[in-house]
Amino acid sequence: MIITLLDAESYGEDIDLSGFEDLGDVQYYPQTTPGEAGERIEKADIVVINNVPLSNEQLDNAEHLKLIAIAATGMDNVDLDYCRKKGIAIRNVPAYATDSVAQHTFAMLFQLLEQTSYYDHYIKTGEWSRSGNPTNLSRVFFQLSGSRWGIIGMGNIGRRVAELAAAFGCDVVYYKREGGKSVSGYEGLSLEELFKSSRIVSIHAPLTDSTYNLITAQQLLLLQQGAIILNLGRGGILDENALVDAIDNHGIFAGLDVFSSEPLLPDSPLLRVKHKDHLLMTPHIGFAAKEARQAVVDRTIENIRN
Amino acid sequence: MIITLLDAESYGEDIDLSGFEDLGDVQYYPQTTPGEAGERIEKADIVVINNVPLSNEQLDNAEHLKLIAIAATGMDNVDLDYCRKKGIAIRNVPAYATDSVAQHTFAMLFQLLEQTSYYDHYIKTGEWSRSGNPTNLSRVFFQLSGSRWGIIGMGNIGRRVAELAAAFGCDVVYYKREGGKSVSGYEGLSLEELFKSSRIVSIHAPLTDSTYNLITAQQLLLLQQGAIILNLGRGGILDENALVDAIDNHGIFAGLDVFSSEPLLPDSPLLRVKHKDHLLMTPHIGFAAKEARQAVVDRTIENIRN
Repeated sequence: MIITLLDAESYGEDIDLSGFEDLGDVQYYPQTTPGEAGERIEKADIVVINNVPLSNEQLDNAEHLKLIAIAATGMDNVDLDYCRKKGIAIRNVPAYATDSVAQHTFAMLFQLLEQTSYYDHYIKTGEWSRSGNPTNLSRVFFQLSGSRWGIIGMGNIGRRVAELAAAFGCDVVYYKREGGKSVSGYEGLSLEELFKSSRIVSIHAPLTDSTYNLITAQQLLLLQQGAIILNLGRGGILDENALVDAIDNHGIFAGLDVFSSEPLLPDSPLLRVKHKDHLLMTPHIGFAAKEARQAVVDRTIENIRN
Repeated sequence: MIITLLDAESYGEDIDLSGFEDLGDVQYYPQTTPGEAGERIEKADIVVINNVPLSNEQLDNAEHLKLIAIAATGMDNVDLDYCRKKGIAIRNVPAYATDSVAQHTFAMLFQLLEQTSYYDHYIKTGEWSRSGNPTNLSRVFFQLSGSRWGIIGMGNIGRRVAELAAAFGCDVVYYKREGGKSVSGYEGLSLEELFKSSRIVSIHAPLTDSTYNLITAQQLLLLQQGAIILNLGRGGILDENALVDAIDNHGIFAGLDVFSSEPLLPDSPLLRVKHKDHLLMTPHIGFAAKEARQAVVDRTIENIRN
């Protein structure tokens, strides 16, 4: 049995992958571009991917393929209906990164809110020493306690973020679609009400027909000045052009761990933002606490074995 | 009645100070150096300070002085015994900044732990776009959940940090001196046991005879590689020379909001650290959430009124 790993590098060099070898002949590719994927899966019985997309044409040519083991939670890199028709099984790993992504949400929030990089630079360049002034309050921050935090996407990660935000004393609300499910313990609001009243908005939804381009200029311009929006769901949920405009002309802050294209395209509007301190970007690493990466590999191996 | 504010600027320009004027004739000084303080308090009935130190000689010359209203929690800038002898009352404002400092503790922790500045720079310079690689795990982070967090100083702030660390899933322990008080809900350890077993250590103690120079090379070298130490108590608790050595030669990370001298002296060893990404510094702003600064001013006015 041939097991083909298309983006082995994405799990990190510090992770033990040897468990795959107990299950078959393993072909490791550190990375695979979308164009390269087709040829590489032609002989595979099982394909293991983290973030490589596979097209239907490529699946057509992979005659032996019985299982796509996604070593991730999101499944938007393959056409699930098409796989079902072709008899290709799909297994993913839900919830392995809940703590890691929730933690990264706070890491992004705090750097934007408290401008720690600005202050660190102020000290390391010697400016504070030369100032003769013990105080520098040029970047004022607000207190989480008593601030409203609106969450879009109340799955495992969204609910974990809600718990932590509540522990910090936030007034937590969430986006509830008309007719959508209620989440006990928190108030559900329309998108408009949520954006109008929240100082912090965080996105933890998957990319689906109903979340694609959900957040546009219309919502971003409802945010109050100084508000912070965080996207740790999927890039396609948030209009990146509208975001850059809202950062530069409407005084909001944004933290992005996910993008409409990863890596970011060289002509992305995000690279042209003027207020650079108002935008914090990380290269889709929210899931990547070491403990979480080892867990997703171990559970992918289990998914193949069973 | 003359009310003299020696460091009015330290509360921030966005804070309303007008309440002082209902109580007497107010003299505002934006900042005061230790040398300038003596002359400025000579005619005062009440002196309001945040971080200006007052020497006993200066107090001797302030014949009208009845009250030193400290608009802060820490009282280490005056000699309390001497004031008592002279009949000068001291009032401070306990606990106003608990949420603000606890929040800043996490802001410092996360920037060190998740290296958000490194990743942000990697994206903004276009390096990610040019890499063709969706993944960059060159700065690995660990998960708080399951990690041990040791706290030194279990007052209001230390206990609030403990609550939040527990919400993130940390195993929280604290430093318990021999014969010291127990804090229910957490395990008390010796300094040696705490440093040996914690991935994160945070200091929230006041500066006293028993905390001065408490943390030296002896403890820092017990930390495991990659461990993070945070000081949000007082600068004098931690040996800054030993810290720089432990960062550069022992692979630890440190976040400092307080220093043996504020502003930092131009010849401070902290400005010569080689592993700059392992050291994060902020200019004593932990207390400075806007809501906390307004609270300390409002409560200082109450302290004068009553």
